[in-house]
Amino acid sequence: MADAKTQEQALLELRNRIDGIDERIGQLISERARCAQEVAEVKNASAEGRALYYRPEREAQVLRKVMERNEGPLSNEELARLFREIMSACLALEQPVKVAYLGPEGTFTQQAALKHFGQSAVSLPFSAIDEVFREVEAGAVNYGVVPVENSTEGVVSHTLDNFMSSNLKICGEVELRVHHNLLVSDVTNVNSISRIYSHGQSLAQCRKWLDSHYPKAERVAVSSNAEAARRLKGEWNAAAIAPAKAAEIYGLNILAEKIEDQPDNSTRFLIIGTQVVPASGHDKTSILVAMRNQPGALHNLLEPFHRHEIDLTRVETRPSRTGVWTYVFFVDFNGHMDDPVIRATLDEVSSRVADLKVLGSYPKAVL
Amino acid sequence: MADAKTQEQALLELRNRIDGIDERIGQLISERARCAQEVAEVKNASAEGRALYYRPEREAQVLRKVMERNEGPLSNEELARLFREIMSACLALEQPVKVAYLGPEGTFTQQAALKHFGQSAVSLPFSAIDEVFREVEAGAVNYGVVPVENSTEGVVSHTLDNFMSSNLKICGEVELRVHHNLLVSDVTNVNSISRIYSHGQSLAQCRKWLDSHYPKAERVAVSSNAEAARRLKGEWNAAAIAPAKAAEIYGLNILAEKIEDQPDNSTRFLIIGTQVVPASGHDKTSILVAMRNQPGALHNLLEPFHRHEIDLTRVETRPSRTGVWTYVFFVDFNGHMDDPVIRATLDEVSSRVADLKVLGSYPKAVL
Repeated sequence: MADAKTQEQALLELRNRIDGIDERIGQLISERARCAQEVAEVKNASAEGRALYYRPEREAQVLRKVMERNEGPLSNEELARLFREIMSACLALEQPVKVAYLGPEGTFTQQAALKHFGQSAVSLPFSAIDEVFREVEAGAVNYGVVPVENSTEGVVSHTLDNFMSSNLKICGEVELRVHHNLLVSDVTNVNSISRIYSHGQSLAQCRKWLDSHYPKAERVAVSSNAEAARRLKGEWNAAAIAPAKAAEIYGLNILAEKIEDQPDNSTRFLIIGTQVVPASGHDKTSILVAMRNQPGALHNLLEPFHRHEIDLTRVETRPSRTGVWTYVFFVDFNGHMDDPVIRATLDEVSSRVADLKVLGSYPKAVL
Repeated sequence: MADAKTQEQALLELRNRIDGIDERIGQLISERARCAQEVAEVKNASAEGRALYYRPEREAQVLRKVMERNEGPLSNEELARLFREIMSACLALEQPVKVAYLGPEGTFTQQAALKHFGQSAVSLPFSAIDEVFREVEAGAVNYGVVPVENSTEGVVSHTLDNFMSSNLKICGEVELRVHHNLLVSDVTNVNSISRIYSHGQSLAQCRKWLDSHYPKAERVAVSSNAEAARRLKGEWNAAAIAPAKAAEIYGLNILAEKIEDQPDNSTRFLIIGTQVVPASGHDKTSILVAMRNQPGALHNLLEPFHRHEIDLTRVETRPSRTGVWTYVFFVDFNGHMDDPVIRATLDEVSSRVADLKVLGSYPKAVL
């Protein structure tokens, strides 16, 4: 009983401490919101206009500082998530950010929009990528969120194609980690897997992977991935395709990660808008280059980047839709247009190609 | 130029202030997380067990205090949402709360689970209400989230029926506000609406309402509710079924709210678990009563509540599945089992009925 009393006392003291902390957190969040209101007032008094309440480079800087200062125990990812929500709430007070995304609701693109803009943004699903572009161009929303890269299919070409005919800028990028996993109850039975449970849709999304890795295993469609994971309890020769959190709940082992081969598993998204985003300190630039198909053309295009030691992060080739040029290249590299070296490099590249369009410089995805 | 400079200076100062505030918020959140770790350590040293890291009554108290102290400019709802996420992150540090919900992903029940437990909880969708019950009973998850009441169909009887054969307790409730709206560009043209746009599914979900209010209007299915709202711009005699945020984005007027007649629009959810939740100060109790069908039975059952001035919030009648009794009543009322008046009342009720089962006392939904 004495121990119980001590424990109760200890808990009471801790809870009082937490209450005190919460009071201060609440005060500070309110103070932050008032500062955000003042920022809006200052901006309203100028020609800078309404659309610029949300500053991607500023948000990226805030999040990076939050993570640099973080000494735990929360992970950088968790702390950044909390600050995104705090910023989202403060921003919505003046004028909620309006966002169009490739729907329907419940898709990864919606998750990306929520992750980037927070729950306080006003977001609406659209059923095609060009509809999202159109909404942003028409000014009905401030930003659009579209998938651009996916773990199994590579680039989402429809998004890139839209940039050929649009004047929209890339204002940011978002990365999501969403994957299918193969779970087993006991890793020592890996070679005897004769049955694989999952929701029918997940089985279909991993068909090619299953064909090559477990061609002989029976595939059993069950009502949900959770149900699949649950079934493993009693069956030592079975596996399940399910999210990693199912492994946590049922105490299972992840035998293989990222086994999906379906195009729906988008993992990188672009924020599109009309805004030219200043440098945040860790930025990326995307350009679109049109050039004739001639020997050494791509080498000729990329050489200045190499010479100036600019780090290319991605090169995509697309057939031109206009027919005027033979090829269109999408090139991503580290750095911001404000950097004189980048500017000089692009001037050089520009002289070698039929056309060069800067799609935008924007902060690298913050976690 | 002088003005621009002053403005820039003002913004710089405000941003420095915000940086300072963010630094303190970050420190306090970390401190709160360390306190939560200490709470876990104290609890681990005792017999209280692992399942009780999450305390519904404590969370409700914290949120109510947060709202009481709130002096703006953020709304209580926004501030409570931020604190839910902070608590969720702190809790997940020790042991993430594991939650089963009625899926699939993207449904209102998932939204309810996320709203209540925050993004840091580990949640899994199940395809039937009794599967959710089973998971919680088996101990695979700490809590389940199931719909119990919906704006158009009343009670979700399958959830109530599950309580007849289960020993699970109700540990909390969640309310969501998700509705269909009829939007128009100009409220003066209400009587001349000849066309109503929406996604096919939404048109179906509001069919009865449309039949009775706009029987003659043509219903046009378009690719999304957002597309429907967008179309109104050029058409003065049209309306759209869309979420309220579409009105905000397109500058439309909400002519009618909550026009859905489909069972999927659940608005109240129960948190089920094995935990007996202590009083939070603003609580509700749910009981299940079995009784024979005889004249005045229901009056006889409810009379003690009336006499003791206990506020009934809901009474539902269900046929008994066992056949032993003719009727089963689900009764919700304000107050907690720890209250001697409530206890005395239930003793009285108990003597008048064939069987009485307390499903749980739990904090009223916090926003």
